Amino acid sequence: MTTKLLLLNGPNLNLLGTREPAIYGSTTLDDIINACQKHVQNYKVELRASHSNHEGELIDILHVARRWADGVIFNPGAYTHTSIALRDAISAIGLPVIEVHLSNIHAREEFRHKSVIAAVCLGQISGFGWQGYILAIDAMLRHLGVLSDLD
Amino acid sequence: MTTKLLLLNGPNLNLLGTREPAIYGSTTLDDIINACQKHVQNYKVELRASHSNHEGELIDILHVARRWADGVIFNPGAYTHTSIALRDAISAIGLPVIEVHLSNIHAREEFRHKSVIAAVCLGQISGFGWQGYILAIDAMLRHLGVLSDLD
Amino acid sequence: MTTKLLLLNGPNLNLLGTREPAIYGSTTLDDIINACQKHVQNYKVELRASHSNHEGELIDILHVARRWADGVIFNPGAYTHTSIALRDAISAIGLPVIEVHLSNIHAREEFRHKSVIAAVCLGQISGFGWQGYILAIDAMLRHLGVLSDLD
Amino acid sequence: MTTKLLLLNGPNLNLLGTREPAIYGSTTLDDIINACQKHVQNYKVELRASHSNHEGELIDILHVARRWADGVIFNPGAYTHTSIALRDAISAIGLPVIEVHLSNIHAREEFRHKSVIAAVCLGQISGFGWQGYILAIDAMLRHLGVLSDLD
Amino acid sequence: MTTKLLLLNGPNLNLLGTREPAIYGSTTLDDIINACQKHVQNYKVELRASHSNHEGELIDILHVARRWADGVIFNPGAYTHTSIALRDAISAIGLPVIEVHLSNIHAREEFRHKSVIAAVCLGQISGFGWQGYILAIDAMLRHLGVLSDLD
Amino acid sequence: MTTKLLLLNGPNLNLLGTREPAIYGSTTLDDIINACQKHVQNYKVELRASHSNHEGELIDILHVARRWADGVIFNPGAYTHTSIALRDAISAIGLPVIEVHLSNIHAREEFRHKSVIAAVCLGQISGFGWQGYILAIDAMLRHLGVLSDLD
Amino acid sequence: MTTKLLLLNGPNLNLLGTREPAIYGSTTLDDIINACQKHVQNYKVELRASHSNHEGELIDILHVARRWADGVIFNPGAYTHTSIALRDAISAIGLPVIEVHLSNIHAREEFRHKSVIAAVCLGQISGFGWQGYILAIDAMLRHLGVLSDLD
Amino acid sequence: MTTKLLLLNGPNLNLLGTREPAIYGSTTLDDIINACQKHVQNYKVELRASHSNHEGELIDILHVARRWADGVIFNPGAYTHTSIALRDAISAIGLPVIEVHLSNIHAREEFRHKSVIAAVCLGQISGFGWQGYILAIDAMLRHLGVLSDLD
Amino acid sequence: MTTKLLLLNGPNLNLLGTREPAIYGSTTLDDIINACQKHVQNYKVELRASHSNHEGELIDILHVARRWADGVIFNPGAYTHTSIALRDAISAIGLPVIEVHLSNIHAREEFRHKSVIAAVCLGQISGFGWQGYILAIDAMLRHLGVLSDLD
Amino acid sequence: MTTKLLLLNGPNLNLLGTREPAIYGSTTLDDIINACQKHVQNYKVELRASHSNHEGELIDILHVARRWADGVIFNPGAYTHTSIALRDAISAIGLPVIEVHLSNIHAREEFRHKSVIAAVCLGQISGFGWQGYILAIDAMLRHLGVLSDLD
Amino acid sequence: MTTKLLLLNGPNLNLLGTREPAIYGSTTLDDIINACQKHVQNYKVELRASHSNHEGELIDILHVARRWADGVIFNPGAYTHTSIALRDAISAIGLPVIEVHLSNIHAREEFRHKSVIAAVCLGQISGFGWQGYILAIDAMLRHLGVLSDLD
Amino acid sequence: MTTKLLLLNGPNLNLLGTREPAIYGSTTLDDIINACQKHVQNYKVELRASHSNHEGELIDILHVARRWADGVIFNPGAYTHTSIALRDAISAIGLPVIEVHLSNIHAREEFRHKSVIAAVCLGQISGFGWQGYILAIDAMLRHLGVLSDLD
Repeated sequence: MTTKLLLLNGPNLNLLGTREPAIYGSTTLDDIINACQKHVQNYKVELRASHSNHEGELIDILHVARRWADGVIFNPGAYTHTSIALRDAISAIGLPVIEVHLSNIHAREEFRHKSVIAAVCLGQISGFGWQGYILAIDAMLRHLGVLSDLD
Repeated sequence: MTTKLLLLNGPNLNLLGTREPAIYGSTTLDDIINACQKHVQNYKVELRASHSNHEGELIDILHVARRWADGVIFNPGAYTHTSIALRDAISAIGLPVIEVHLSNIHAREEFRHKSVIAAVCLGQISGFGWQGYILAIDAMLRHLGVLSDLD
Repeated sequence: MTTKLLLLNGPNLNLLGTREPAIYGSTTLDDIINACQKHVQNYKVELRASHSNHEGELIDILHVARRWADGVIFNPGAYTHTSIALRDAISAIGLPVIEVHLSNIHAREEFRHKSVIAAVCLGQISGFGWQGYILAIDAMLRHLGVLSDLD
Repeated sequence: MTTKLLLLNGPNLNLLGTREPAIYGSTTLDDIINACQKHVQNYKVELRASHSNHEGELIDILHVARRWADGVIFNPGAYTHTSIALRDAISAIGLPVIEVHLSNIHAREEFRHKSVIAAVCLGQISGFGWQGYILAIDAMLRHLGVLSDLD
Repeated sequence: MTTKLLLLNGPNLNLLGTREPAIYGSTTLDDIINACQKHVQNYKVELRASHSNHEGELIDILHVARRWADGVIFNPGAYTHTSIALRDAISAIGLPVIEVHLSNIHAREEFRHKSVIAAVCLGQISGFGWQGYILAIDAMLRHLGVLSDLD
Repeated sequence: MTTKLLLLNGPNLNLLGTREPAIYGSTTLDDIINACQKHVQNYKVELRASHSNHEGELIDILHVARRWADGVIFNPGAYTHTSIALRDAISAIGLPVIEVHLSNIHAREEFRHKSVIAAVCLGQISGFGWQGYILAIDAMLRHLGVLSDLD
Repeated sequence: MTTKLLLLNGPNLNLLGTREPAIYGSTTLDDIINACQKHVQNYKVELRASHSNHEGELIDILHVARRWADGVIFNPGAYTHTSIALRDAISAIGLPVIEVHLSNIHAREEFRHKSVIAAVCLGQISGFGWQGYILAIDAMLRHLGVLSDLD
Repeated sequence: MTTKLLLLNGPNLNLLGTREPAIYGSTTLDDIINACQKHVQNYKVELRASHSNHEGELIDILHVARRWADGVIFNPGAYTHTSIALRDAISAIGLPVIEVHLSNIHAREEFRHKSVIAAVCLGQISGFGWQGYILAIDAMLRHLGVLSDLD
Repeated sequence: MTTKLLLLNGPNLNLLGTREPAIYGSTTLDDIINACQKHVQNYKVELRASHSNHEGELIDILHVARRWADGVIFNPGAYTHTSIALRDAISAIGLPVIEVHLSNIHAREEFRHKSVIAAVCLGQISGFGWQGYILAIDAMLRHLGVLSDLD
Repeated sequence: MTTKLLLLNGPNLNLLGTREPAIYGSTTLDDIINACQKHVQNYKVELRASHSNHEGELIDILHVARRWADGVIFNPGAYTHTSIALRDAISAIGLPVIEVHLSNIHAREEFRHKSVIAAVCLGQISGFGWQGYILAIDAMLRHLGVLSDLD
Repeated sequence: MTTKLLLLNGPNLNLLGTREPAIYGSTTLDDIINACQKHVQNYKVELRASHSNHEGELIDILHVARRWADGVIFNPGAYTHTSIALRDAISAIGLPVIEVHLSNIHAREEFRHKSVIAAVCLGQISGFGWQGYILAIDAMLRHLGVLSDLD
Repeated sequence: MTTKLLLLNGPNLNLLGTREPAIYGSTTLDDIINACQKHVQNYKVELRASHSNHEGELIDILHVARRWADGVIFNPGAYTHTSIALRDAISAIGLPVIEVHLSNIHAREEFRHKSVIAAVCLGQISGFGWQGYILAIDAMLRHLGVLSDLD
């Protein structure tokens, strides 16, 4: 059976590769999605990527995902620190969600240390640049039993 | 003359009945709207229901309501705790707004105790499940003089 | 079977109708009790009203209520914000208690926003003047199944 | 016409003269009341003194005072720092109330610096031992126009 | 010479044994007093027990105790966390007072961690259920020299 | 060469002129835009105005602006105080942005004193009503060297 | 022997009578000084008045006062809330100092509730308008034994 | 009739042009005053500039200004963040005051974000270097009706 | 069967009897251990005492104790207020642990009021000097059923 | 060339598999180390594992690691939240360090949300149980270029 | 070449020797200056001492010092804790400044622990009485290379 | 008689000279100890240096020092900010202790501003690099009367 994953990105991540490369690197969002697609092609995994700058749209996408996805890799961007609505959406859909951040949010401004969604996620990966998405996919596949510790 | 009420619901309330029933019950949003419609049919009251997961759309709906509605029953979901923009929208439209919460927000996580919109609402009703909407409609009809204390 | 309700009022509410009418209205506590009595006369409901300015006396009254009442409508006045002893009394008696406030406490001074008893009550109704008591009775009767949503 | 004043003392002040004399002096509450009575005998002033360790009783006494007194000299003892109910009682009765403290509360423990009733009193006098009551009577008589600045 | 102890209990402790047994156990207040009386019968100790739900009454009882008692075992219930008036009463009477709590207050809600009276007590014993009273009596008898470390 | 400016307005500003005139004045958003257009007509300046109540849409508009605009005059309304996502959008586009507020936000409720976007803007102008936009345009033109200090 | 008092006024008090009369009344500083001079003329009291808007000058005046004055009546104006240097000056000179405020500082903005000098003053009198100075003089004369409680 | 403006500068601004040019630029205070004089010469405006490093002197200057000036452009330097005395002076003189800052204070250290005088000023302009003074003059002339929106 | 107890003491307690006797008394740690050994000799109790100034060593000792002890009497000294690692060790070993303090930590500096380990202990005894250890042993024996309330 | 990694574990992690399995799982520390060794055997990677309950020893081990290791996988246990000394050690050695937590620390008690070492680590991985170590090794190998995104 | 140092003292330090000797010792400011002059006479050092109780004057003195001095030894007295203006003056003049305090400010009232100027000083010496000035001179001479570590 | 001093260094200071030279300089700990030994050789002073990364070992060393040393020069490294156990050790040994920091801790991250041991030390010297140790030795010798102000 195919495992289905949603790769969801929040506000300003569409500018990746051009936006403040010192913090976020020069890889574009498309590059990342391609690398992720490539990474999963050895498994029976279907990966669908989505992006929105709109908090409400991200909620809508998560709501839809509960009807098709087995897990969500989510970089909520700045909504990480403010959106209780996204937190509630994650609780509501009942899917395992892994929170990913390109930069190490714990090493930046004080207001970026706190994630209001972390408490309802499976786990958090931050600080490894675009490779964090690869790690998150691995973590999800291990969580779902697709990738065993004998790989 | 017909009294016109807007019944407005915010993020994740579309999942009611399926989302975390231990907290929110098993009644769906449609069930609630139907019960409310049934409740008002003895009065000359027109009730229009609206829902959005988008903060901006909720603002738009409130803006439009000032041209047709006499009062608003509003469950802002998680935006209750974060949206100064919704607070300003309520102030701006000049209509009486009653804040409703299904769960008793004062008995949940600390961050749910504070409503940033309460100060510009007529009043707040929380903790009575879907029946809170019925109570809010009664409260609004009493406020508007449609329902007198001699009922 | 008759449903028995305690209508309990805390400090300074005996001055209602004379005290700061701009905030609390001109209805006296007796007026309110009469309106409540009238409101419940269509149901098999017995309503007993009590008042005290003494925190200890309010605790005593709640303790006694657990031997006869099915539910409590409680306006704790200023003790709302300070009395952990009343909170413990409510927990201890195991009855459903609804917290009522005449004014919208969330729209007043910062120190009135926090209710230390809310977390152990069924729900909270605030901002609807004396009609809040009527709404609270309805909420309690609905909670106890006396008033069904088909009324 | 006779000016009528209530001299009201709160918790533990009955022990004055015996309790921690280093902080509160060796004068008893009766000594103070006698000195106050003597002080007002040159004016058409009737002074009634009352004491209680019970917050509720102090509220009751204030409620009664609004039917006979022109002003209140009030040392609320430790309730100064915690009793919003007394604050509401002072607002409710609409009489001028002067807050007196024997010790300089602003020079003691942090938790004694804040008076929750000060904002609804005419003024505050603290740090002058039992003579603070005499000063408060003078302040009240000046406020009521009994004592003019030409005395 | 007989040592005289006051065993004083505050708000809601009269409901012990029925109130929230998961937290407070199933022993009633009378059971505890009996066990304490039995415990002291081998010593020349007179133990008088008192209870009140009223903060003011507890103050009154402490004031009276200074005329007859050698020490006080005190469970102030919820007033532990709010009553500066009781703190002042303890300071004022000059007797050794031991604070007892049935539950481990440091393991419960944040607001129960802070005791406003602890700083003026001899010591604090919390978390040992009703046996904490026995321990407190022993601690007091040791403090008063009735029970030597050679028992 | 023509200088191109974006005049961007956030939530509820579409109601200007009708919304709480005591705070925001009676000029409409269209009036303001017209005055701004008139103000810039002596310079080689093209001014495009945009408005949205949606945080995500404001982000989208800013993203697009980096492809055509030389600077942004931005009144983020209530998002000023909550939107880290807008802050990140401003950082990401690399254009000079001037924050404008009609009212003096520092003289209003505490929660309006803090701007989460100010740190990434060129500067802030607040308190001058609709004329603040004119001042902001002048500030931007001076910053871009279009308006020299010899005007 | 003549008792010598310094009547010291801080920043903006020179504008009294013209500045915000709703808060500070219409009496000028000269009127107050004259009333104080008249008030002390029945006693062997010499009263010298001083004013400065400069924190440093107020310190200098206090330093000089320790060589001639028996006590100080001090209204530090806004420096009340910020000047640790004035606090240190009061400690350093070793004279009894009474803090006076025209308005009830405890009933105004939060930042006016805290006096950083109160802890080193004899006492504080606030809320009685210009008559507070008369009360403060009486308090000082009582403290110095010039005015006995048999007046 | 000539409009008269005070251009007032606080502590350390006399070092402008030499002090930390990375933050404050290389323009001297005299350069700024000259540019401002030049800027107003097309209007019937008299501009007088003043500077002091002394908080008390700044208060004195503001007090004098109420007898001759129509408005004040004020850069209070570091006193912005600490001087309630200056705040009171601004309230007391009843003139419109515009607060100007060379740097964007909201983008610097946390303690520079808060202005204790902003709440009593007409508005605030920060972040535009010395050109902020020009903008402030325009804002004041617009406020006073000297410069109409048809300029 | 023999009951086995660990009596564990943390940093600086080896200096007992010499260190600040005003706070900690003049009894040495050896005196205390001897008194405890003597106290348990009437019961089938084996008591082993241990001390370390090293946080890590205290953790090691607790880890070992889970293999032999039935309960732990623990005075963690200053680590009480800072060591989450000790808290985790207590949780991890699953033994009943009683926290003892010689002085009344709630009556000392603010930073000593908070115990980070209390929440995972059975209970806390503080303020009874070295006799607190005897009380703690009794409490533990009662908890383990070795000492019944019929002693 | 062989890549050398230190796998370092802090306090209480030696009890893994036995300690609170609901939070930490039933895998022992040896199981984890074995799984890690197996995971790296396809690469030229040498992995050395170390554990200590002592903060100072962990510092010593890190100091030594700078002489032989290319990177550190570190689970500091409870020292995560308190040890600035470990933070300084990580800064001092100049090696890339990845912080790993078995449980999702952001979903547990408030005091576990804050890592004082995160700011000096490459990144943080939390919430994936023992598989988090595997993910951390992959992250480190990717960071060091041993594992390319083409694996 | 002669090294020139400014020895600058702030508010209330002119009273040294008479003011609260328990805290500040019995040495006068002149004694200290003489000891400092004597201390530097073996070096080519010119030391000029200055004192003011005025914050503004201290700023003026620092401004002048940048034209003649090589370093500043500064005891800002109470302005240490409040004067951002002095902090800015120190930054502005670009000279090395050493902060000296007679008493150990970290061992006194909480509000004396924080120095708002420390962050822009070379270093801080506190708690060594008047000898702290000698140490500060040595520290400055070492910093300026006048005194080498071979002395 | 020979004066005996302990020079004690805490965590990570063994890496001095290699660790972050931008903050801590390039001098090694051995270099510093040598310079200190050389500095004291003109006096009858014996200086013993010790270092540990272990909090418990530092406590042990301090305990031993009370049997041989006359004073302690202590750089506690990061334990400065967290170790109440070290604070208690310093109080317990009753020796004069001087706290030294290489960097100006008040100019670094907020969490380095607070020293939990400062209140029990003689004084604090920070910001002068390794020369701070020389200054601290001088300060100690002056305190002990070995070095008089006539040197």
